[in-house]
Amino acid sequence: MIFTETRTISTKQRCHWIDITSLVRDSITRSTVSNGIVTVTSLHTTASITINENGDPDVEKDFFRKLEHLVPHRESYYLHSEGNSDSHVKTSLVGTDITRSLSSGKLLLGLWQSIYFCEFDGPRSVRQFTITIVGE
Amino acid sequence: MIFTETRTISTKQRCHWIDITSLVRDSITRSTVSNGIVTVTSLHTTASITINENGDPDVEKDFFRKLEHLVPHRESYYLHSEGNSDSHVKTSLVGTDITRSLSSGKLLLGLWQSIYFCEFDGPRSVRQFTITIVGE
Amino acid sequence: MIFTETRTISTKQRCHWIDITSLVRDSITRSTVSNGIVTVTSLHTTASITINENGDPDVEKDFFRKLEHLVPHRESYYLHSEGNSDSHVKTSLVGTDITRSLSSGKLLLGLWQSIYFCEFDGPRSVRQFTITIVGE
Repeated sequence: MIFTETRTISTKQRCHWIDITSLVRDSITRSTVSNGIVTVTSLHTTASITINENGDPDVEKDFFRKLEHLVPHRESYYLHSEGNSDSHVKTSLVGTDITRSLSSGKLLLGLWQSIYFCEFDGPRSVRQFTITIVGE
Repeated sequence: MIFTETRTISTKQRCHWIDITSLVRDSITRSTVSNGIVTVTSLHTTASITINENGDPDVEKDFFRKLEHLVPHRESYYLHSEGNSDSHVKTSLVGTDITRSLSSGKLLLGLWQSIYFCEFDGPRSVRQFTITIVGE
Repeated sequence: MIFTETRTISTKQRCHWIDITSLVRDSITRSTVSNGIVTVTSLHTTASITINENGDPDVEKDFFRKLEHLVPHRESYYLHSEGNSDSHVKTSLVGTDITRSLSSGKLLLGLWQSIYFCEFDGPRSVRQFTITIVGE
């Protein structure tokens, strides 16, 4: 059985992440699939999907500060005229898809794991990601 | 239904990317799968698969320049005798597989997204990647 | 057909990787699936899954040394009180899942590729990852 849907969210800052785990769980419920895999993909070249800590909001701050340190918004050698070369680099480093296991109707995430839509060039009123479930 | 094939390409520089989206779309057509997922994997430890911007070729230049800045070809502390430690590091940072949704026969990519074979230790006359389609 | 299991390992240092390819191959055998895909996921926010070189152990050393250089254990600006902000950053950069093709009972890996559980905040006596196989 295959279930796919595209979800839309808006982002509020240039760089931050948004917990989309509950949206993924909603899709699993609607799909009626109990066992298989779930893939979440970003439809953008300046926004990623990642899985990280949901306990302490300081993890998000440290993550984006370190990324900004490694890949600053401005570098003298960037050529891309839109001024968001850093966003493109960060997107390929963090990646635009994640896949998880689904077993007996349960999304297999660790205790502290959430799925995040990771904005690197916001704020944007319309950002989209897909949720696809393959299984039985 | 499952469809898998391995494709071969050659690369032209030490570090660059090659748009393989049309090869992936060809496989989807041959597979006759309409709904499901598509996974593309690199069979190398010094070449990645990534998704990024297809509009402006400067994005590719900025991406490889920044990566070279973060992970230079040479570092005094590298031990690996082949002289391509940087290629191995870049490969794990960018990742060796991507998965995308396939819906009603259509590969779900955003407007500016292409799938790239990302060479970090070329030029090579033979580089291989797999395309696997799982669905109905 | 869907097959999922969770495996447990222990890690020995703060940062190192463990080759789990044979554990993944064992799961494939038990699953009786011949064609499809295999997804491996880490259930932690400070440990990744990656694919890299199995020939020369210096690749592992160079990989972790470069990562420590890019994302040091300590930075004056880290806020997260557990002192492992670097581990969280590294985990999202390297990623927490990989997917591979399975064809005629064979896991499609390149000659030098192994699948690694990548510890960024060890040693830990209990670390877990899932192996899910979807196919026929």
